Amino acid sequence: MEKLWVIGIGAGDPDQVTVQAIKAMNQVDVFVVIGKGAEKQELVDLRTAILAEHVERPYRVVEVADPPRERRPDDYGSTVDDWHDRRAEVLGRVFDDITGTAGILVWGDPSLYDSTLRIVERVREKAQFDYEVVPGITSIQALAARHRIVLNRIGEPVRITTGRRLHDETVTNAVVMLDGDCAFTEVPGDDVDIWWGAYLGMPDEVLVSGSLRDVEGDIQQVRSELRDRKGWIMDTYLLRRR
Amino acid sequence: MEKLWVIGIGAGDPDQVTVQAIKAMNQVDVFVVIGKGAEKQELVDLRTAILAEHVERPYRVVEVADPPRERRPDDYGSTVDDWHDRRAEVLGRVFDDITGTAGILVWGDPSLYDSTLRIVERVREKAQFDYEVVPGITSIQALAARHRIVLNRIGEPVRITTGRRLHDETVTNAVVMLDGDCAFTEVPGDDVDIWWGAYLGMPDEVLVSGSLRDVEGDIQQVRSELRDRKGWIMDTYLLRRR
Ligand SMILES: C[S@@+](CC[C@H](N)C(=O)[O-])C[C@H]1O[C@@H](n2cnc3c(N)ncnc32)[C@H](O)[C@@H]1O
Ligand SMILES: C[S@@+](CC[C@H](N)C(=O)[O-])C[C@H]1O[C@@H](n2cnc3c(N)ncnc32)[C@H](O)[C@@H]1O
Repeated sequence: MEKLWVIGIGAGDPDQVTVQAIKAMNQVDVFVVIGKGAEKQELVDLRTAILAEHVERPYRVVEVADPPRERRPDDYGSTVDDWHDRRAEVLGRVFDDITGTAGILVWGDPSLYDSTLRIVERVREKAQFDYEVVPGITSIQALAARHRIVLNRIGEPVRITTGRRLHDETVTNAVVMLDGDCAFTEVPGDDVDIWWGAYLGMPDEVLVSGSLRDVEGDIQQVRSELRDRKGWIMDTYLLRRR
Repeated sequence: MEKLWVIGIGAGDPDQVTVQAIKAMNQVDVFVVIGKGAEKQELVDLRTAILAEHVERPYRVVEVADPPRERRPDDYGSTVDDWHDRRAEVLGRVFDDITGTAGILVWGDPSLYDSTLRIVERVREKAQFDYEVVPGITSIQALAARHRIVLNRIGEPVRITTGRRLHDETVTNAVVMLDGDCAFTEVPGDDVDIWWGAYLGMPDEVLVSGSLRDVEGDIQQVRSELRDRKGWIMDTYLLRRR
């Protein structure tokens, strides 16, 4: 393998791919898909459509099955760490078999809550190849654009966090990702606003915003109906204390 | 004016424009440039080049001079607020004269430390028009891609803040923007790493990374040399405590 491109392709809207990503995709001989089987068919189809639309040369797709992973372990950090080691081993073997240029497509941007770069770094401890990262529109940017909001009030900081950690945070401007449990319902106070979005940039996109106490029940209901109907959900939101 | 597009165009690399941004730019009759005169000629030229490369129909560019602004005021928040009101008034008058579709191009993403959406909301208190926001690659995404890093360690939050506020923050993962004073030199401890980038995506891009105490002097020196040579600088960085 001569070179690896890790390419952010945006959060779901095929038009939110950059020119740089399109140029990079057009240099790739083999697209490597990590996590075979784990992904929702709809997302697989969306990625296939992005490739079909933008790539004008022949390419192969190689799928890499993820090694099994313990769910909800006690020591979250170290278990994830072991798992990444095993993923790196498997990925290293796949890279060994590639001649030419490889590409890995990442939803959103590779710099946020995504393990691709970490795994690639582990592979690079034992193998040498050139590699480059192409940034993508994150689901946070997609959320803000659809609600037409600025994440920060003038001069204020913004916190990006997970549902799991939300209880630790002040919510001046907190963007929450990876929240399977509606952690926003646990945030106290009558002075918090929420801007919520699911399937951002996709045909099923839903937006809800308002005072948290007024709309939290609606969001829970919409969220569980959608998840039941489609079998999966991806959502993110901004919380801000007035 | 029928419609306004606020379009994120990325942090400086013309290839980091999205397909959605290109499609939006191709619907615009009049591009409105806020802050005439305040901008560095190099950035004006870069924006002109982006338009020339991607727009295939005739368009006009209207420049709006900013009303004068107090520098380093004591009550930062309220002075900025008044100033935005005056900017909104001026912008509203420009919009009144536009027939068709207007567009405002924003560096990076409109959702981060940018006042365009706030000003547009004020204009909309008195005028009605349709408007849509197109997300862009932020300088944070550009920074992370060039350093090939993930902003968060596994499960950790990320803080986005300004140089002015950095002293308030824990620096587990702090992305700092708008820092004219090398606030990183004030962060205590020997266990902090920095990933710094200036003019990201532009021909003069510079990257420095390493242990903060080892490289802070280099960054200060490079930064002041570059600023003197070019007359302006834009830089951003991630700080992380080990
Ligand atoms: C593993 S993280 C990956 C984030 C991704 N790298 C990014 O830049 O957006 C997955 C989380 O991102 C958010 N997310 C990603 N795509 C989304 C979408 N289209 N709509 C809403 N949320 C999305 C959800 O919070 C989801 O739990
Ligand atoms: C007014 S803020 C606008 C941020 C912009 N909306 C974004 O999404 O990146 C300007 C700050 O962004 C950062 N910045 C913007 N473009 C940059 C670039 N090309 N290289 C380095 N930093 C940049 C710098 O910290 C600068 O002080």
